[in-house]
Amino acid sequence: MPETIATKKIYDGRIFDVRIDTIREGEAEYEREIISHRGSSVIVPLFDDGSVVMVRQYRHAAKEILLEVPAGSLDEGETPMEGAARELEEEIGYTADKLEQIAEFYVSPGFLDEKMFVFLATGLTKTEQRLEIDEIIEVEQIPLTDAVDMANRGEIHDAKTMLGLLFAARTTAKRS
Amino acid sequence: MPETIATKKIYDGRIFDVRIDTIREGEAEYEREIISHRGSSVIVPLFDDGSVVMVRQYRHAAKEILLEVPAGSLDEGETPMEGAARELEEEIGYTADKLEQIAEFYVSPGFLDEKMFVFLATGLTKTEQRLEIDEIIEVEQIPLTDAVDMANRGEIHDAKTMLGLLFAARTTAKRS
Repeated sequence: MPETIATKKIYDGRIFDVRIDTIREGEAEYEREIISHRGSSVIVPLFDDGSVVMVRQYRHAAKEILLEVPAGSLDEGETPMEGAARELEEEIGYTADKLEQIAEFYVSPGFLDEKMFVFLATGLTKTEQRLEIDEIIEVEQIPLTDAVDMANRGEIHDAKTMLGLLFAARTTAKRS
Repeated sequence: MPETIATKKIYDGRIFDVRIDTIREGEAEYEREIISHRGSSVIVPLFDDGSVVMVRQYRHAAKEILLEVPAGSLDEGETPMEGAARELEEEIGYTADKLEQIAEFYVSPGFLDEKMFVFLATGLTKTEQRLEIDEIIEVEQIPLTDAVDMANRGEIHDAKTMLGLLFAARTTAKRS
């Protein structure tokens, strides 16, 4: 495997850090600007009636209001499954009897180490949302099949949401 | 729409910049750390025999060797389609008679503004790869159906590649 022969810290942030690594790979030596992130949990909350809960919110990076499935960065020391349970309750106010991982992926591995872990959440019970002041979210409940159709028609513009819905549909189709 | 009331530049990089914006949204005022990136083109190069070209390379951010479809950051002033044509030739050494956009998405819109534009490339003609010294790539040609199966079995760990393959399969299935 290639070897990191030098590293320079650029920025120590709240959500991510930035560093420049120098890498030796075979005969080549090159630099990479890297964003370091703890990873994220993504949840597809699926009810017995086949509907899912999604969230609509302003995303400043995108300068758009996006429709997404619930998700959030992992806290320090947290496993992806613990993060999924926490985000499910904080963001939309539910607990799940069952959380099963259905996909995992990097989102931009050329410079960002963030890995996302997608969970299908079933056996949902309503508790209470606990949002931060900067989380201004509208919650929507729609049939999974409608959400998948929206993704397939190009009406959802978030990679984790598209993949979460497609993999949730595959997982449930295999069981029915 | 929410309003940006202050912005502070943190880092001016080669692939991305970093800034902190202060946003006013309704009654709330909050900060966001933002990675600014020009966006990326993603290409699914599909041959008449139903095979696709993929690339295997060490990704330092992931510290893994990943199997991906060809992709790259847009150059300044370049459209996504121009970027797709350029990357197709540079990275794997092909030109395409036809490039059609089949998907677009943000990859981590909580803090990263990178949007990816996915193109299906057909009518492929071999030219010459033009790799940089830091692009150490193995090219593989496999049936699209096999690649889709790998994505569905969780053997591909890159979001753009998973979505690119699934949308390429949908697009070609609708036509046959």
